[in-house]
Amino acid sequence: MGELQRIIGLITDFGLKDPYVAIMKAVILNINPNVEIIDISHEIEKFSIAEASFILTSSLKYFPRDTVFVVVVDPGVGSSRRALIIQTKNFTFIGPDNGVLVPAAIKDGVKNVYEILNRNFFLKPVSSTFHGRDIFAPAAAYLTLGTPPEILGRKINLNSIVKPSWATFKLSKDKVEGYFVYFNGFGNASTNIPADEVSWLKYGMRVRVNIHGKASLIIKFLRAYSEVEEGETLLVTNSFGFLELAVNKGSARRKYNLKYGDKVTTSFRTHICYL
Amino acid sequence: MGELQRIIGLITDFGLKDPYVAIMKAVILNINPNVEIIDISHEIEKFSIAEASFILTSSLKYFPRDTVFVVVVDPGVGSSRRALIIQTKNFTFIGPDNGVLVPAAIKDGVKNVYEILNRNFFLKPVSSTFHGRDIFAPAAAYLTLGTPPEILGRKINLNSIVKPSWATFKLSKDKVEGYFVYFNGFGNASTNIPADEVSWLKYGMRVRVNIHGKASLIIKFLRAYSEVEEGETLLVTNSFGFLELAVNKGSARRKYNLKYGDKVTTSFRTHICYL
Amino acid sequence: MGELQRIIGLITDFGLKDPYVAIMKAVILNINPNVEIIDISHEIEKFSIAEASFILTSSLKYFPRDTVFVVVVDPGVGSSRRALIIQTKNFTFIGPDNGVLVPAAIKDGVKNVYEILNRNFFLKPVSSTFHGRDIFAPAAAYLTLGTPPEILGRKINLNSIVKPSWATFKLSKDKVEGYFVYFNGFGNASTNIPADEVSWLKYGMRVRVNIHGKASLIIKFLRAYSEVEEGETLLVTNSFGFLELAVNKGSARRKYNLKYGDKVTTSFRTHICYL
Repeated sequence: MGELQRIIGLITDFGLKDPYVAIMKAVILNINPNVEIIDISHEIEKFSIAEASFILTSSLKYFPRDTVFVVVVDPGVGSSRRALIIQTKNFTFIGPDNGVLVPAAIKDGVKNVYEILNRNFFLKPVSSTFHGRDIFAPAAAYLTLGTPPEILGRKINLNSIVKPSWATFKLSKDKVEGYFVYFNGFGNASTNIPADEVSWLKYGMRVRVNIHGKASLIIKFLRAYSEVEEGETLLVTNSFGFLELAVNKGSARRKYNLKYGDKVTTSFRTHICYL
Repeated sequence: MGELQRIIGLITDFGLKDPYVAIMKAVILNINPNVEIIDISHEIEKFSIAEASFILTSSLKYFPRDTVFVVVVDPGVGSSRRALIIQTKNFTFIGPDNGVLVPAAIKDGVKNVYEILNRNFFLKPVSSTFHGRDIFAPAAAYLTLGTPPEILGRKINLNSIVKPSWATFKLSKDKVEGYFVYFNGFGNASTNIPADEVSWLKYGMRVRVNIHGKASLIIKFLRAYSEVEEGETLLVTNSFGFLELAVNKGSARRKYNLKYGDKVTTSFRTHICYL
Repeated sequence: MGELQRIIGLITDFGLKDPYVAIMKAVILNINPNVEIIDISHEIEKFSIAEASFILTSSLKYFPRDTVFVVVVDPGVGSSRRALIIQTKNFTFIGPDNGVLVPAAIKDGVKNVYEILNRNFFLKPVSSTFHGRDIFAPAAAYLTLGTPPEILGRKINLNSIVKPSWATFKLSKDKVEGYFVYFNGFGNASTNIPADEVSWLKYGMRVRVNIHGKASLIIKFLRAYSEVEEGETLLVTNSFGFLELAVNKGSARRKYNLKYGDKVTTSFRTHICYL
């Protein structure tokens, strides 16, 4: 084949029981039958913009250049939320103007932002409750056919779009403070702290991990889950590069009753209690 | 490519843990490697013909012409249930003769009905418990290769097939009575009442919604979930065009303890109680 | 197209919420965009090598020749577990050296075994926690491109790899003893006993089924679930060819509180109690 098949990656909170994901795929393939669709996740916690954003940002770099990512997670669907196309160095992002696309787009380097407006490229009639099907899916399909984003809408200023309020961490020379932003299916608890930015943290080191208001642990920072006994807790760098609290063959989420947004401090001075 | 890739859409109650869906796909791709398979849903409530039928009927119109839909939901699998091919104006439907294909096929316009009988096109040996793999999947694959349905079986009379008993609603000039036939992953409760047939219902109107034996509500008929506060109930037209009871960022199903088949009456005379 | 698209079949215990499966697919398509990926199951019970192995072995024969199967289920991930390629008569298997690939490979006929070692074909940097993405997915993709396994690693002896300890059954002329090794989504309980090896077992026969320490049943061995009333128990040959305890429209797993590895004896002398 001359040209490579373009890829569309989908992230939604639709779950897999309802036919919504399949309908988006049908709409896409009706417009461009030669696109390859990859389901990134459809089991985002309902309306969780932060979780969708973490998954998108963490998955990004494994996808081929020119992948189009479509994110449909929005507590305010049906409101007057704008629909965005963000072009970055390697990718294109499509989704609502609620901040969900921003961390991933900034990570890859934003080039242009567009508001989708041209109703000629919408699926008709447009439902006020299903923008994923009626606006985002067709936009993604037309972009993979080569339709320029200028035709689908109008260029807008990056400053005008909604920025997310989560995703900051505080680093000092003996501790680092962040948040639990993602629990995987095993119950491993990822923070928003990129491990390689914490230069004082070395494998094998004992650290104090203070889960504010819940627990204060003295555990080891290790390379692999299997370096502790079953049921024991450790700190690792997860496969996305973030500090993660984990229990070998168990669930840290359940063991410490962790919630999205719980604050966590890691310190190498284990004799000091931050509780 | 000269010819467009044909699409097969799958609906089952197999779930995604077991390998049954993957085996059906392997059987299909073994016969026709150039078909595109879309999972519509594999999490249909076990044996729920009504739910599978609603999802099929609601998804239909978004799929490209010539899509072949395969539905494997059957409380009587292993019995002497006939296997059907129904050709309609735009599509082909394959599944058991238990009524599950009928509403979708009628909606698109039935042209011909066939009973699948030719064992040369079955996967051998035929298991009495897995018609999806042994009969429906091969039939779908051969049809996408251009094998005429007359070769796979014999033409039968539309009148001879099983018709479903659900899916009726009663409309009068001040009320409409139907059933809850589908709960989506958010807990929104879809009725079987097409919104556009209820001419007296206008956006912004306050209506009485009587869930027989459970609750009598006075709520608004609105365009979008976000038009009420979080946790409040509203009536909307869902993205499939049916009247739906919903709770903004909540679950109507849980709030009112709704079950499949619960009767619901909507009336615009809010001062009358139908309880 | 000249050559047929190669198929990669995936089995993991990652679940579908996390983006791990999508990342493996992205890595694969980045290396070989023309491969077809089939999800066999991603909902294997966490770390259950036996379940993954049963599903792989049961699915095998429906897949086209030259399919590459990748299994990522490993309680010891992050340890010094070797990564294997096993070439068999019809297929290629990739996964950890923990026994999970062995029953399927032996069933199809082992030709060669390789340890994956060549870091030039790894995704870099290699994470100690995600071999599926960094080692197995690239290996599968390169194999489908035609890269010989000798280039990816070194040939090793079949005797040197880990063999599984499960999967034996004892057959005599009036009883057969085995284990429950798989529960499907309906709660049907598959044993590891191939039905066609139990020559004294005939359809219609009443048998005693003794679930050691839990229950002793006298039930019928029948062809189809629907041959008993709803809620009644029966013994059937499941669609994979194994003896299976099932409840018509119910869950045998729940009814008898069955666990993985529970021992089960089936006997045709119903007047003797083996409890």
